Amino acid sequence: MNYNELVNQIKTKKSFLCVGLDTDINKIPKHLLELEDPIFEFNKAIIDATHHLCVAYKPNTAFYEAYGIKGWKSFEKTISYLNKNYPEIFTIADAKRGDIGNTSTMYAKAFFEDLAFDSVTVAPYMGKDSIEPFLEFQDKHTILLALTSNTGAFDFQTLTTDGNPLYQSVLETSKEWKNSENLMYVVGATKASYFTEIRKIVPDSFLLVPGVGAQGGSLTEVCKYGMNSQIGLLVNSSRGIIYASNQTDFAEAAAKKSKELQKEMEAILS
Amino acid sequence: MNYNELVNQIKTKKSFLCVGLDTDINKIPKHLLELEDPIFEFNKAIIDATHHLCVAYKPNTAFYEAYGIKGWKSFEKTISYLNKNYPEIFTIADAKRGDIGNTSTMYAKAFFEDLAFDSVTVAPYMGKDSIEPFLEFQDKHTILLALTSNTGAFDFQTLTTDGNPLYQSVLETSKEWKNSENLMYVVGATKASYFTEIRKIVPDSFLLVPGVGAQGGSLTEVCKYGMNSQIGLLVNSSRGIIYASNQTDFAEAAAKKSKELQKEMEAILS
Repeated sequence: MNYNELVNQIKTKKSFLCVGLDTDINKIPKHLLELEDPIFEFNKAIIDATHHLCVAYKPNTAFYEAYGIKGWKSFEKTISYLNKNYPEIFTIADAKRGDIGNTSTMYAKAFFEDLAFDSVTVAPYMGKDSIEPFLEFQDKHTILLALTSNTGAFDFQTLTTDGNPLYQSVLETSKEWKNSENLMYVVGATKASYFTEIRKIVPDSFLLVPGVGAQGGSLTEVCKYGMNSQIGLLVNSSRGIIYASNQTDFAEAAAKKSKELQKEMEAILS
Repeated sequence: MNYNELVNQIKTKKSFLCVGLDTDINKIPKHLLELEDPIFEFNKAIIDATHHLCVAYKPNTAFYEAYGIKGWKSFEKTISYLNKNYPEIFTIADAKRGDIGNTSTMYAKAFFEDLAFDSVTVAPYMGKDSIEPFLEFQDKHTILLALTSNTGAFDFQTLTTDGNPLYQSVLETSKEWKNSENLMYVVGATKASYFTEIRKIVPDSFLLVPGVGAQGGSLTEVCKYGMNSQIGLLVNSSRGIIYASNQTDFAEAAAKKSKELQKEMEAILS
C-alpha cells in the first residue's frame, strides 16, 4: 500500500485508528478455547466487527511466537485473512526487528514478501545497515522506534547526545538513509508534548502512536501536537479494544470501543 | 545452565567457540535439498561434527522466520536436538528482541520455557522494563546488545551521551537492573580496542563476540583486551564455519575450521 492509499482510507473512514492484535490465550473468552485455532478465531471475529472503524491492524509477533508453530499458524492465518478479505487495510507486523545487513534482509523478505504485510516495526540501535534492507521494498513501510510509550523510554531514548535527545538523533539520522521516504516512526502517546519537536524534524512522516487507552495517553493531546496536513497519525489501541469484554459479546464490545475512538477521531478531523 | 557450568565446559574443551547457525537454504549443499527438512539436516550434521570443539550454538531466528512455519519447525527441531543430545552445550537464540513489559514476558517464555534455550539476545533501546522480564528466569541468560560488529554501530552506539558513548551508558545502566547478574553483552570483534573500556564497566560478565572471521575481527586482539580470569568470552563464527564447503564434505569442512579456531583458543588459554 502506498502513502496516498493510506491517507485516502483515513479520509473515507474518518478514522486513523489501528487495532493492536496482542492476542493472549489467557485473556480471550473461554468459549473460544474449544475451537481448533482460538487465537485466529478471536482475531477473525475482532476484524469482522471493527474493520470499518479502523484503518490498520497491528499483530505483535511476541504473542504468536509464544505458542511456537501453532502460534505462527495463527499469525499467518490472520494476515492472510486480512489481505484476502480487507485489502484496503494497512497491516503492521509489530516485530521490532533489526540485525546486521544480510540478516535484516531475511526479516524483510519474511514480513514483506512471504507474509505480505504492508509494514514492520524495527529498532534503531544497530543503525543504518540494519534498517536499509527493509527500505528497499516499494510501497512497503518501515516503522522505526523513536520514542516509545513505556517507562524504559527514559533510560536511553531521552539521553542527550551531542546536544539533542537520542530519539531526535534517530529521527535526524534516519532521514539520510536510502529510500527514507519509506520510513514511519513509533512515538508514544504518553509523551504528547514531545510531538512538537518531533514534527519539526519529520513534518511529513506517518507516526504510529501506541499508548492511548490502557497506557494512559490522550488522543486530543496527541492530535493537537502530532497531526499534519495529511493527518500523519496512526493511533493504536490494543487491550482497550480487544479485551473490552471476555464474554461471548467480545466482538461487539470491541466494535463499541472502536466506534467511540472513531467518533472522537471524526470530531477531530472535521 | 549456570555461569559455572559454562566456565567449566570452556576449561574442559579448551574452547570458547560459538557456532552461528545462520542457515540459508540458498547456501547449503544442493544434495540436502532432496531431504524433507534440509535446514534441520544441515544443522544436525554441523552440530554432530563440531560439538566437541565448541561450547555454544547460536541460531539466528531471522533465518528460520524467513521460511514461515516450515522454518519454525526447523528451528524447534534444532534446539530440541541440541537439548536432547548435547545438554552440556550453551544455546543462544539470536533474536534481538525487546518490547514493552508484558510483551517481553511473552518473548521470554517463548525462548526460555517453550524452546528451552539457555539465553537470548535482546536490544536495549526500550530500556529497563523491556529487559527485566527476561532477567527473571533462573539460570537463563539475557545477552544485551552493547557494541555491535556492523558499520551501523557508529550511527548511535558511539554517540556521546552525558560524557560517555551510548554503549557505555547501556552497560552502566543495565548493571542497576533487577537480576542483572543474568546479563551478558554483545560486543563486536571488529572493535577490539574498545574492550579495555568495556572491561572496566563489566569486568565479570560474559561477552558474546561476533565478527571474527567473515566480518574481519582478530581473535588474538579480542582475547588480549577482552578476556577475564574466568575467560568471560564466547567468540562466534557463523559463515566462516558453516559454509566452509558447499559440497558433501560440508560437515567435515566445518569441523576443520572449528578445529583451527579451537586450537588458536587452546593456545591463548594455556
